[in-house]
Amino acid sequence: MMFRDATIEEINAAAEEAWHAFHAYRKLSLKQRAVFIKNIAIEIEALGPALVKTAMKETNLPEARLQGEKTRTIFQLNSYAEACERGDWLEARIDTGAPGRTPPKPDIRKMLVPLGPVVVFGASNFPLAYSTAGGDTACAFAAGCPVIVKAHPAHAETSEMAAGAILKAVEKCNLPKGTFSHIHGRGFEAGKALATHKHVKAVGFTGSYAGGKALFDLANQRKEPIPVFSEMGSVNPVFLLPGKLNESAIDMAKMYSASVTLSVGQFCTNPGLIIGVEGNDLNVFTDRLGEEIKNIAPGIMLHQGIASAFTEKRDTALKQKGVTTVAVSATSASENQGSPTIAAVDAADFLDNPLLHHEVFGPYSLVIRCKDRKQMAEVARQMEGQLTATLMATVKDLHENIELVEAIKNICGRSILNGVPTGVDVCLSMHHGGPFPATTDSRFTSVGPDGIKRFARPVAFQNWPEELLPDELKNSNPLSIWRTVDNELTKNKI
Amino acid sequence: MMFRDATIEEINAAAEEAWHAFHAYRKLSLKQRAVFIKNIAIEIEALGPALVKTAMKETNLPEARLQGEKTRTIFQLNSYAEACERGDWLEARIDTGAPGRTPPKPDIRKMLVPLGPVVVFGASNFPLAYSTAGGDTACAFAAGCPVIVKAHPAHAETSEMAAGAILKAVEKCNLPKGTFSHIHGRGFEAGKALATHKHVKAVGFTGSYAGGKALFDLANQRKEPIPVFSEMGSVNPVFLLPGKLNESAIDMAKMYSASVTLSVGQFCTNPGLIIGVEGNDLNVFTDRLGEEIKNIAPGIMLHQGIASAFTEKRDTALKQKGVTTVAVSATSASENQGSPTIAAVDAADFLDNPLLHHEVFGPYSLVIRCKDRKQMAEVARQMEGQLTATLMATVKDLHENIELVEAIKNICGRSILNGVPTGVDVCLSMHHGGPFPATTDSRFTSVGPDGIKRFARPVAFQNWPEELLPDELKNSNPLSIWRTVDNELTKNKI
Repeated sequence: MMFRDATIEEINAAAEEAWHAFHAYRKLSLKQRAVFIKNIAIEIEALGPALVKTAMKETNLPEARLQGEKTRTIFQLNSYAEACERGDWLEARIDTGAPGRTPPKPDIRKMLVPLGPVVVFGASNFPLAYSTAGGDTACAFAAGCPVIVKAHPAHAETSEMAAGAILKAVEKCNLPKGTFSHIHGRGFEAGKALATHKHVKAVGFTGSYAGGKALFDLANQRKEPIPVFSEMGSVNPVFLLPGKLNESAIDMAKMYSASVTLSVGQFCTNPGLIIGVEGNDLNVFTDRLGEEIKNIAPGIMLHQGIASAFTEKRDTALKQKGVTTVAVSATSASENQGSPTIAAVDAADFLDNPLLHHEVFGPYSLVIRCKDRKQMAEVARQMEGQLTATLMATVKDLHENIELVEAIKNICGRSILNGVPTGVDVCLSMHHGGPFPATTDSRFTSVGPDGIKRFARPVAFQNWPEELLPDELKNSNPLSIWRTVDNELTKNKI
Repeated sequence: MMFRDATIEEINAAAEEAWHAFHAYRKLSLKQRAVFIKNIAIEIEALGPALVKTAMKETNLPEARLQGEKTRTIFQLNSYAEACERGDWLEARIDTGAPGRTPPKPDIRKMLVPLGPVVVFGASNFPLAYSTAGGDTACAFAAGCPVIVKAHPAHAETSEMAAGAILKAVEKCNLPKGTFSHIHGRGFEAGKALATHKHVKAVGFTGSYAGGKALFDLANQRKEPIPVFSEMGSVNPVFLLPGKLNESAIDMAKMYSASVTLSVGQFCTNPGLIIGVEGNDLNVFTDRLGEEIKNIAPGIMLHQGIASAFTEKRDTALKQKGVTTVAVSATSASENQGSPTIAAVDAADFLDNPLLHHEVFGPYSLVIRCKDRKQMAEVARQMEGQLTATLMATVKDLHENIELVEAIKNICGRSILNGVPTGVDVCLSMHHGGPFPATTDSRFTSVGPDGIKRFARPVAFQNWPEELLPDELKNSNPLSIWRTVDNELTKNKI
């Protein structure tokens, strides 16, 4: 199904409506917001098998994967709703006054309030969980912000269905119409018009570096700059330490052949670089990884553009100085399929060539052979910001490679020990973010309820009487939330 | 005393040293950081009366004011050190694993880690508390970041003394040399070189819109953009509601004549706009405010540039359509003095003229006469982002002006009831920030220990064993800090 691109007039009207709705929506209690978000989950569920079926058709992702993603979407909505209501994220702080102090200490109370209308650009690779009714939208609603979604053109119909579910929840909860809008637009113009509209106060984006950085730049060049959280993917380096490599090269090769090719490599946490010290153990690992990869059939990618970009970027990478092809899937790829591929290169060549540091989105990974541990630490230090970095290591390895271990923490948002970076758990402790260029602001996450904070700012109330304070800050603590009162965290009344 | 401007080579060397020091400094425990910051307070104290004397000479601020600022600086250092050690700001989150879940739930633990070297640009109007050893520096050290201060040329000698105190503390605590550097530079070049250096990872700035916005733009145009928190001042509107105005016009006039002229109006929280509904009560207020202002003598401003900018901007404002001069100090101003001045204008003219919305830094305030409450709410809605907004109102006024009350919360970082915006308490509940153009990121504060979060980002540790986790995240909770464990805030061990 083709959807008509929104006109600039329609985009402006959506932003105006969102601004209008903001003044009502932000006054909703935490409980009311939670009820609304849970109702979206109910409406997503109510779409039945048609949602997954439509997403399958549009994205080429298999049913089980999309079924899992639908479950995740519903889980996210419910768990962010619960976090919203729990209220820890409000960072409520109260300093009671001391009129007798010199100068008198006023009564000050602070909590987070919503920024305003948020524009969400969904991910092509997560048509449900990180798109229309996905994490950014749930976070913005929890924060108290209306949302305008720019539908991803690669799954516009799926997006339309999810939007319908949200609109039903809006209606059911008697919320103003502008609480949620859904905009189609195949070019960059619609996104640009949204990100630069004066009533839009923040942007959430998941996708390519080019798209995320362009939005970041536009937002910063506005008369009133606004925060943009772009999650732009990553190469997710994996460091194989000598002890661990010696212990379990074969097991690791099996584990990583699966991680590299999971969902045709279309995860932003896909392990794109695997780094080890040259020698027999690394050869054993690389050979076995190659063998495994040969046996994994190519898969259809999300859409034609992604498939051709994968082949092009992979082929360019394979042609770089010093790069050799370790293995390609033994099954030849049909149209729009991505062929699992492993390449290898010496660290010296890698360090010299910025192109090899960039993501090849798809089932591809590059093995980097270092001369020694020192060079392995150097590779870590020279790396750009990453969503994740992984150490495959024994405890002895870690103690013997402190320099590397520390360097890794410094480049990533999540540090994994003896696991794979693919698979991002939705929980409060998850950090799905990282230094630029993984994201545009390393201080925030797009997964987990802490993502709500992207769309909220503190306001302090000085000298307000009990009856006029928001419930969150009243002496009686009617919502029973955690608050820091005179520097002590407590749920107590004052 | 004149200090030589740093060369680009010296600036680069400072950034390299800071980067080198970062890798050691960030590993300091919370306690060690706190000890270091408290030692800075001790060394500031040890400078004796010479510090205030030097600051008096450089800034023309009176002794009592600077003595108070010194006390505040020491209080800030000590209280941020305590907050650092208390560790609430780390946002430690732990989700314990559930290997039996499908898919298995990994053990994930998250906390804030430092961004890297921070460059601090101090404020001309706070030579101690918001300059070299001021709030931004204390926050960055607490977060685990080395600091490079670009001395404010208007108080370079005071800055040099504070820098000496910090360097003594660095030495006393055996920290690497690059933990702190101090750079002189009278032009914009030094600031530019620092903000664009690849090893600088964040900027804290307090000062003018022009300076703060230029740094923000430079930082966003870097290959790797970095966060800039610029606090760029504000006009701090004060809304006089009808009931309150009727009750206490005279008292309010006295209160505001003092607030407008405090420290020759040189506070970023100076009330630059006073808004009321036209009529007898507002006339009584305005007349009395004028009478009070006439009796307040001009004061010497911070430096010649600020004094001439004040006179120029004030004179320009007074020439705008519809603006009338209510009163000027009866004492004529000598060189570099600022004359307390009150002007008035009808709301319609104010709404039509963007120039009148901008700050006139100094002892000046503009009374805005609205036709009715509706127009008063419109004035609030049309206002740019503010550090503060104040309501002078009875409880009845507030109930009768919900639209205005809500509009005000939406434009400011701190909402004051029946007080003055000048006077910013240093405590956790303080928010000294606000929507653009008050600051470049409304989600952060530059006063209070929450300011530490500007310079830190989360890192998640997935599947790390107890012995290799940071102390903050160990099962045993050896630091006894607050952590959210499986969604519950607790200090308990796991």
